[in-house]
Amino acid sequence: MFRSEEEFVGWLRSRTPRRARGLRLGVGDDAAVIERSRGDDLVLKTDMFIEGVHFRRDLHPPRSIGHRALARSLSDVAAMGGTPRFALISLAVSKRLGDAWIKQVYAGILALAAHFQVAVVGGDTAVVPGPTYMDVIVVGEVHRGHAVLRSGARPGDQIYVSGALGLSALGLHLLRSKKRRPTHHANAGQALRVHLYPQPRCTLGAYLADRRLASALIDVSDGLSTDLDHLCQASGVGATILQERLPAPHLPSNRLIRSESPLRLALHGGEDYELLFTVPPRQAARIPRSFRGLPIHHIGEIRRAHHILLKRPDGTHLRLRAKGYDHFRK
Amino acid sequence: MFRSEEEFVGWLRSRTPRRARGLRLGVGDDAAVIERSRGDDLVLKTDMFIEGVHFRRDLHPPRSIGHRALARSLSDVAAMGGTPRFALISLAVSKRLGDAWIKQVYAGILALAAHFQVAVVGGDTAVVPGPTYMDVIVVGEVHRGHAVLRSGARPGDQIYVSGALGLSALGLHLLRSKKRRPTHHANAGQALRVHLYPQPRCTLGAYLADRRLASALIDVSDGLSTDLDHLCQASGVGATILQERLPAPHLPSNRLIRSESPLRLALHGGEDYELLFTVPPRQAARIPRSFRGLPIHHIGEIRRAHHILLKRPDGTHLRLRAKGYDHFRK
Repeated sequence: MFRSEEEFVGWLRSRTPRRARGLRLGVGDDAAVIERSRGDDLVLKTDMFIEGVHFRRDLHPPRSIGHRALARSLSDVAAMGGTPRFALISLAVSKRLGDAWIKQVYAGILALAAHFQVAVVGGDTAVVPGPTYMDVIVVGEVHRGHAVLRSGARPGDQIYVSGALGLSALGLHLLRSKKRRPTHHANAGQALRVHLYPQPRCTLGAYLADRRLASALIDVSDGLSTDLDHLCQASGVGATILQERLPAPHLPSNRLIRSESPLRLALHGGEDYELLFTVPPRQAARIPRSFRGLPIHHIGEIRRAHHILLKRPDGTHLRLRAKGYDHFRK
Repeated sequence: MFRSEEEFVGWLRSRTPRRARGLRLGVGDDAAVIERSRGDDLVLKTDMFIEGVHFRRDLHPPRSIGHRALARSLSDVAAMGGTPRFALISLAVSKRLGDAWIKQVYAGILALAAHFQVAVVGGDTAVVPGPTYMDVIVVGEVHRGHAVLRSGARPGDQIYVSGALGLSALGLHLLRSKKRRPTHHANAGQALRVHLYPQPRCTLGAYLADRRLASALIDVSDGLSTDLDHLCQASGVGATILQERLPAPHLPSNRLIRSESPLRLALHGGEDYELLFTVPPRQAARIPRSFRGLPIHHIGEIRRAHHILLKRPDGTHLRLRAKGYDHFRK
């Protein structure tokens, strides 16, 4: 373990930027200082990442833990249409863990931060007897008044989702099954990659906000059924989703995940960090089928009635209920 | 316990501002949105507050826990000369605890926030099997380029500290001794008050920064000996402190705290959240003896040699070493 907080802060300071656009003061003083420039609003989000809740040390390598902790907060900023700029990291690290583990966690954080040109500018650190807790704060920018809320969806708006759904949940199943390299199926490697190193959709979020294309926007962190429910509740609307349009995973032939269907994974699997958004009908023609290589799927329509229906391939409808993750329901 | 995260967020939203100066969007969406206006820099700080490390549920009422968690981060913003404006609260609450406890914690947070006109604009919540963790993020403003760092102290600068030192540590001793109302000594009630409901010195910090009076500034969170050491190390200097100038507590005649001397409490007791600052000699005449009722004590001088000396009343000098709190040394 680092011999002192100063040693740790010195180590972190050597790995975080002294200079970045808009940064006046980074790691090492009482607080970070950033410039305030004209024209943009600031988006602020903090997300916790907790051992035993969001990660398990026996399943997740430390580099993945750092990556996922930051990805979660970046995704929330993307879900407002913001471009992430700065991050602060709070880490309460279990005293059982050593320097090497902490450094790997930060390696995961700093690599993802560098990818999105996000400057880690501060945080807090403690050593604790119990499980490890992280809290990641991200500060982003969005053009003044362009932030896209959950509450803007109106009946008739078309519903879109980026990328693929259910891959992260599938990856977690594969990790738990301990058959970590079922190379007989191409989807398995992709699922593990998405679970361990998810890519938040910051560029797409900013694109939608800059051009005012989306009426409502949320990220799929708790599962489509739950996050669509959040969006509909905030907007006071319902929705119909077409089952055949959902970008569900192909399942590897692994008996241990027999209990999961591709549909269940796509509807209820969390942590894909894709973007779910609605678009007014007059704007729908402007939504591309893919954005910089990322597929965008047209999966349904907002309705007036306050419930969510799943239209099955045979034309029948099922009432869809939120079955994603809710901390208070655990 | 709240039946769902939505119920909790709804409860919190009803108690936090929809409208505040510079606030575009508060609790309830993916992230908070604040305006960026010209002329000011933003100060960002996050501080953890952990059961078993920073508080004990058998000693600290939940209202005090909320108050202290926010005070800690406010004090860091004050230590940059910033005026706090917004806060985000991450709360990982032990599943053993109920709604009433959570609401009391928030009552403590929201009362202190209201006192400083700080808007609680978001955060994150989880229910966990282990101890309760909080992380409090505060965003403050400071005039562009006026933030006061730890690193600006120069030989010859005069050293000041606000308020009183060691009262919080004394309060903690009294709480632990279970003689919670030793009314035979006036200092005891004050010590308990300072420990349970410390007042961060935001107004003084902003005053020093606005007028560019301080060359270096830090808050006394880990104890004078530790925080002065941080300031001196960051500035590449040393210091001499006059024992007789230290605002040490009068000790109640309580046998259980016999092991503590007023001097030890003043030098090494943490969590007073007073401000420690240095002032160039030409500015020293501008430092008042009190600021809005808060005493300001002239306790020493910055020296070139890289160590800290304590000058005793008999004229002899002691080498002073950091004996405050360091998480990695526990």
